Amino acid sequence: MNRSFSPPQSGADVPPFDLHAFVRQVFPYPRSITGDGVRATIRAIAEHVPVTIVEVPSGIPVLDWTVPDEWNIRSATISKLSGEVLVDFRGNTLHVVGYSEPVHRIVSREELAQHVHTLQDQPDVIPYRTGYYARDWGFCLSHNHWMTMNDDAYRVTIDSSRGPGSLTYGELFLPGSTPDEILISVHVCHPSLANDNLSGIAVATALAVREMTRAERRLGVRFLFLPATIGAITWLARNEEQTSQIRAGLVLTCVGDEGAFHYKQSRSGSTIDQAVAHVLGHAGVPFEILPFSPYGYDERQYGSPGFDLPIGCFMRSVHGTFPEYHTSLDNCEFVKAKALDESYRMVAQVLDLLQGNICFRRVDGRGEPQLGRRGLYRAIAGQREGGGSTQSDLLWFLNLADGRHSVLDIAERSRIPFSRIQHAAYRAYEANLVVMEDP
Amino acid sequence: MNRSFSPPQSGADVPPFDLHAFVRQVFPYPRSITGDGVRATIRAIAEHVPVTIVEVPSGIPVLDWTVPDEWNIRSATISKLSGEVLVDFRGNTLHVVGYSEPVHRIVSREELAQHVHTLQDQPDVIPYRTGYYARDWGFCLSHNHWMTMNDDAYRVTIDSSRGPGSLTYGELFLPGSTPDEILISVHVCHPSLANDNLSGIAVATALAVREMTRAERRLGVRFLFLPATIGAITWLARNEEQTSQIRAGLVLTCVGDEGAFHYKQSRSGSTIDQAVAHVLGHAGVPFEILPFSPYGYDERQYGSPGFDLPIGCFMRSVHGTFPEYHTSLDNCEFVKAKALDESYRMVAQVLDLLQGNICFRRVDGRGEPQLGRRGLYRAIAGQREGGGSTQSDLLWFLNLADGRHSVLDIAERSRIPFSRIQHAAYRAYEANLVVMEDP
Amino acid sequence: MNRSFSPPQSGADVPPFDLHAFVRQVFPYPRSITGDGVRATIRAIAEHVPVTIVEVPSGIPVLDWTVPDEWNIRSATISKLSGEVLVDFRGNTLHVVGYSEPVHRIVSREELAQHVHTLQDQPDVIPYRTGYYARDWGFCLSHNHWMTMNDDAYRVTIDSSRGPGSLTYGELFLPGSTPDEILISVHVCHPSLANDNLSGIAVATALAVREMTRAERRLGVRFLFLPATIGAITWLARNEEQTSQIRAGLVLTCVGDEGAFHYKQSRSGSTIDQAVAHVLGHAGVPFEILPFSPYGYDERQYGSPGFDLPIGCFMRSVHGTFPEYHTSLDNCEFVKAKALDESYRMVAQVLDLLQGNICFRRVDGRGEPQLGRRGLYRAIAGQREGGGSTQSDLLWFLNLADGRHSVLDIAERSRIPFSRIQHAAYRAYEANLVVMEDP
Repeated sequence: MNRSFSPPQSGADVPPFDLHAFVRQVFPYPRSITGDGVRATIRAIAEHVPVTIVEVPSGIPVLDWTVPDEWNIRSATISKLSGEVLVDFRGNTLHVVGYSEPVHRIVSREELAQHVHTLQDQPDVIPYRTGYYARDWGFCLSHNHWMTMNDDAYRVTIDSSRGPGSLTYGELFLPGSTPDEILISVHVCHPSLANDNLSGIAVATALAVREMTRAERRLGVRFLFLPATIGAITWLARNEEQTSQIRAGLVLTCVGDEGAFHYKQSRSGSTIDQAVAHVLGHAGVPFEILPFSPYGYDERQYGSPGFDLPIGCFMRSVHGTFPEYHTSLDNCEFVKAKALDESYRMVAQVLDLLQGNICFRRVDGRGEPQLGRRGLYRAIAGQREGGGSTQSDLLWFLNLADGRHSVLDIAERSRIPFSRIQHAAYRAYEANLVVMEDP
Repeated sequence: MNRSFSPPQSGADVPPFDLHAFVRQVFPYPRSITGDGVRATIRAIAEHVPVTIVEVPSGIPVLDWTVPDEWNIRSATISKLSGEVLVDFRGNTLHVVGYSEPVHRIVSREELAQHVHTLQDQPDVIPYRTGYYARDWGFCLSHNHWMTMNDDAYRVTIDSSRGPGSLTYGELFLPGSTPDEILISVHVCHPSLANDNLSGIAVATALAVREMTRAERRLGVRFLFLPATIGAITWLARNEEQTSQIRAGLVLTCVGDEGAFHYKQSRSGSTIDQAVAHVLGHAGVPFEILPFSPYGYDERQYGSPGFDLPIGCFMRSVHGTFPEYHTSLDNCEFVKAKALDESYRMVAQVLDLLQGNICFRRVDGRGEPQLGRRGLYRAIAGQREGGGSTQSDLLWFLNLADGRHSVLDIAERSRIPFSRIQHAAYRAYEANLVVMEDP
Repeated sequence: MNRSFSPPQSGADVPPFDLHAFVRQVFPYPRSITGDGVRATIRAIAEHVPVTIVEVPSGIPVLDWTVPDEWNIRSATISKLSGEVLVDFRGNTLHVVGYSEPVHRIVSREELAQHVHTLQDQPDVIPYRTGYYARDWGFCLSHNHWMTMNDDAYRVTIDSSRGPGSLTYGELFLPGSTPDEILISVHVCHPSLANDNLSGIAVATALAVREMTRAERRLGVRFLFLPATIGAITWLARNEEQTSQIRAGLVLTCVGDEGAFHYKQSRSGSTIDQAVAHVLGHAGVPFEILPFSPYGYDERQYGSPGFDLPIGCFMRSVHGTFPEYHTSLDNCEFVKAKALDESYRMVAQVLDLLQGNICFRRVDGRGEPQLGRRGLYRAIAGQREGGGSTQSDLLWFLNLADGRHSVLDIAERSRIPFSRIQHAAYRAYEANLVVMEDP
């Protein structure tokens, strides 16, 4: 095959826009699994990349599920009968349980208590609750706030609507030179929670900008911005054929806090697991690799037995293990610009690795080639050299360039960073010592 | 396939009879590899389960061996010439070397010394010795006793007979709904040694009673009560065709002492190894897994290269590693009722696991099923849940129910006890989310 | 098949000649990748074994390389203009950079400095340098010596010649009863360096003497004495067909120092790796197993992707890790007679293992054979025996003699030394319990 092979790109770089500013921008939008908050969020993404907004009508069957009614909310308050507003959705979107039915009533404190959610062990924070299929209404308050509300009755208003409409998601596909593709998926259904998952949305958007400028894109890259669970299921139902082209993928979530990196492996093991472990292992950062498990984010759906896609989940702190998780403390202060940028760089390196992870084959694999006459060897032999030198990188590459080892395989076996083996590959390729193999 | 699937049985229970009383009952019977002691022992088993007594005539070739002459012993003594009896077989069957020839003579102490076995390093105990093919006679005494016997001559009598007869073993087969079967094998040839192996006989008999009451027995279960080595070889020779149906098996021995559990793996690795390790690993008891080795009990014969059956050896203390082994200290006091009962419960769990270890396949494996509309999900999402909850069990099961993972495979991968995954399987099966796969 | 099976040979023995004396004998010869020094060295080997001296003309293409011009050197000095000789090649062959061009001139100190190599961090030693393809000239001196040479000019003479001639290597092939073969390869191109690699040459020569006397040589054994890199490439180019018969092989180097043993595995893993690890593991000596890497000695060429031969590298101290490496300290005092002899014995055991590593199959594998009637079992059973006894060796062998496990496989699984399993095999073979399998 006559493809050309460009010198490898530098993997580390700065995000194309201010990720933290993006998080602050979209933080107040009233997101849920449907509705205008999702649309506003995807429009914010569209300010950076040409994402397509897909609308799927309510009631459409998607795999085992049905696209739900659309829910929108304009305002919600709890007031004293005197008129003083005590709780206001405009102050924090977490105050209303997702998919709450409309209500405009005076209720006794006793009745209200049936609809109020607090966290007794974190009495200062507002919890996050949804009830997509409950046909109920509810408010989330800090426990301390609720403890001060001792009137006999309160006026409650939720100006929401629920009915036939559509489920909204964003999709951007950047085709590659082969039919194979990488999937990057983030959920956009959580309201004012910054780490879970405005951080993922910001990083994915920035990666999309970066990917659009890639000189040679071997693998197509598909970015999905969708409501968790039902969004992934909807996309899978509508793109079942396409899934067979997915060679690797990541769900991005909770990538804005300052915790160590965590990577949850794909269901059946695959190159993506090897790739992320390689990048993290050579990055000099604390990290942990976790085995696949069927709870968490949309890797659950992609890794269901009927699809079993090679998709892992890339995180910093793991959902459910940090106290800010699913509370009002997961806000724009919890997410740090430096952490977002570092997450961006790490995943960018994973994408570079996947794009560059091809196989080479020695034109003549019998013995070592004579490097000296090709200017690839020092003239005076016998000098001591360490195992980590560039000369070693080249020898490792030439030894394992047998058409069966990918660049990543060689990097892993030699314990040399991918980028150095890739550079050695380029030197060998320029010297006509190797050809590229069709994978 | 239209099999029904019953809710899993509770694994832990109490033995159907007093195991320690059984051990005490059969302790005095004069067992050897043939003879009336074996018959009496199997009749004692037959008081609990309908075991078949099989008689194989002496002289019949069995594989590389020949069924030996039958040996019976009625009495044996060493007396002073004055008539005082110093050593009496009725006091302890260990006093006579198995298969001793008859003798009625006055012998010098010097000659007697050639026929006396003692343990100098355990001077208070009677050792256990046999000489099935030696055509000799001998007595086993405590070393201290022997040191007091300083007369010039003694009167020796052994009233034994050896000649054409038969080898006796017990067999009980409980058929299953499939042709596959489990083998439980114990040796019945040791005389008054309680742990090795009246403990194994008692536990196997109790398991047979339990197995007879199993509501749905997927796998047949075969119980063998036979003399070690020659008994197993005889059974194998006569049932060579049947061995191909054996899917798993255990040799039970030394299961009455208070030591930690030990399991010796099968020769080539198999489900039984996985099953026992799983049960012991989740039981909260000390245990050790040992690799296969070709010395020990009848797993040697079942694991010979021409059969290579998936049969391991289940023990508490390991033969040869405890000081009571093969001595008069291996008596009814050494074996404890509590230890016998615990061994019974542990193997019962292994049998339950093997019986329930089937594969399921999701009816539609694409994505997660919508649990909520089936009453399998909490209405309000977003609450924190630990990885060990019932919800997790179900998600693990549904994710790996792909027709390739058995319930045990799922339990092992998720590190969740078998019984909990089995329960999740039942919930999913009842909800028509999965079908059973033919293995 | 009707091969006979001889009782195994004793593995440990004394070398057939004084290895250290051999090292001292050939130490002064002016070796390089071509020339009379190599010829003299191979003639010294030929005093012990009928090695063939192969001459390959300069200019012949060999794989990616070309056989170089032949280089010979008769004398070389640096003198004061007064005539006093300061540096003389006759004192140490390391003084001249290999393949130096002839020179007979008065040069300024400044110009001379461009041609002088020293080691500042080891100021007392002469370094080793070559410049096979540099078309330059140079001297190697101790740094302290060079610091004393402060005259304005010196007289330099190198009486060398370079031109069409040939590359010389030695080869000895001892055929076996099968077409398969073992390759033992050592480099002979280094001048006065004792450990690297006169030690390897001495040990290989002694092994060749030993191999010539082997009673039954199942595998052919080929010994190669050749210049590093270009010699291996030349042999491979001329014997490409033959390489497919190589079942195992070793490059021997640095086997004369007192360091711990090191074995570098073959590129793709093979029996030789298992064999060396087994011998070292049971020898009670300190050792380390290193993964394959594509720098080092001629295992690089044998393990290039187009050949990928099962050849590892056997060493004591590893090149580049000891301060004497590639300096004048790697002399006849650095190499010890005891260390050479021990290396010889270790590799001899590896060769015995490879020669004896065949598969056996039980004539009747169903159950254990009755050892008693064949005189292979003690008459009185029930005695305690340790797992390491001869009885255990035989039981392990008989259990795994299924035609699929080689003697080494059995030794490894049972953790019993090869020689003991081999002995058990002989006992079983003599008793007609097993037959040999064609591999």
